[in-house]
Amino acid sequence: MRRMENDARRRGRFWDAIEGRAPMPPAAVLLGWELVEIDPGQGTIEVAFEAGEQFLNPVGFVQGGFLAAMLDDTLGPALVATLPQDQFAPTLDLHVQFLRPARPGRIVGRGRIVQRGRDVCYLAGELVAPDGKTVAVATATALIQTVKPA
Amino acid sequence: MRRMENDARRRGRFWDAIEGRAPMPPAAVLLGWELVEIDPGQGTIEVAFEAGEQFLNPVGFVQGGFLAAMLDDTLGPALVATLPQDQFAPTLDLHVQFLRPARPGRIVGRGRIVQRGRDVCYLAGELVAPDGKTVAVATATALIQTVKPA
Repeated sequence: MRRMENDARRRGRFWDAIEGRAPMPPAAVLLGWELVEIDPGQGTIEVAFEAGEQFLNPVGFVQGGFLAAMLDDTLGPALVATLPQDQFAPTLDLHVQFLRPARPGRIVGRGRIVQRGRDVCYLAGELVAPDGKTVAVATATALIQTVKPA
Repeated sequence: MRRMENDARRRGRFWDAIEGRAPMPPAAVLLGWELVEIDPGQGTIEVAFEAGEQFLNPVGFVQGGFLAAMLDDTLGPALVATLPQDQFAPTLDLHVQFLRPARPGRIVGRGRIVQRGRDVCYLAGELVAPDGKTVAVATATALIQTVKPA
C-alpha cells in the first residue's frame, strides 16, 4: 500500500480500521476489501476486492449487485477517509453501469470525490478487472452526518 | 410461497433453481434469497432476503451496496422468471436510492417489469423492512440475451 507520510497521524473511522485500532467493517471483510493507495488531499482512493465464487450469478459471472457493493465500498471510503471520528457519510443514491461481465478474482476499485460540499458530496469511480478493462462505473451522492461515538 | 398453478410446468433457469432441478446461484444463497410470491404473467415478484451481520457497515447498518445487491436480485428475477432456458438478462444499469438505514434481519424485495421490449426491459422495485417501511428503491435496465446451455 502506498500512502502519504502523515497517514499515521490521521484519525477517524476509516483510519482506525486501516491502522488496526478498530475492526474492519464486516461488509468490507466479506468483499475482500484492501486499501491499495489513497490521497485524502486529492480525494482519491484505490482499493482492491476479492470476488469469490459466492458472488456469482446463474451464468457464472459476478452478480451485478456485488459489483455495486464493491463500488459503494470504493466511492464511500474516498470521502470517509477525509472525515473526523464523529462524522460518517451515508450514501443517498448510487448509479451503476455494468460495462462487461466480471469473472471471480481480484477487482480493483478507483474512487474520487467529484465535488465536496459542506454536507452533500458527489462521488464517482470504476471497477477494473485484472486485464485492465473497466467492468463497471458508478456515481453516488453522499451526505456528511455527525454520529454519536460507538 | 404462493404461486400460479402452472408453475410446475414452467422451465428456464429461474424455475430450474426454484424447483430444485438446478442449484441456486451462489449470489442468491449468500443473500439468503427466498421466493415469496410470483406472477410471471404480470411480471411481478416478491422475494425475501436475510441481511446477516456480515453485510454491516462501520455504523452497524446494512452496507448500501448489499441493499443494491438485493435489489438486483429482486428486479432481475421478475424478468428472468419469464425467460426460456436459453435466455438470460444481464443488468445494464442499476440506480438505487437509499431511503433509510436498514438493520440486519429479514428484508422483503418487490420487483416488477415496468416495460418489456423484445430485447430491452425496464425494471423497478423496492426493499421493505419488517416494520413495513421502504428502505431503498431502484430502477434497472436489462437486456435479454440468448446464451449457450451450461
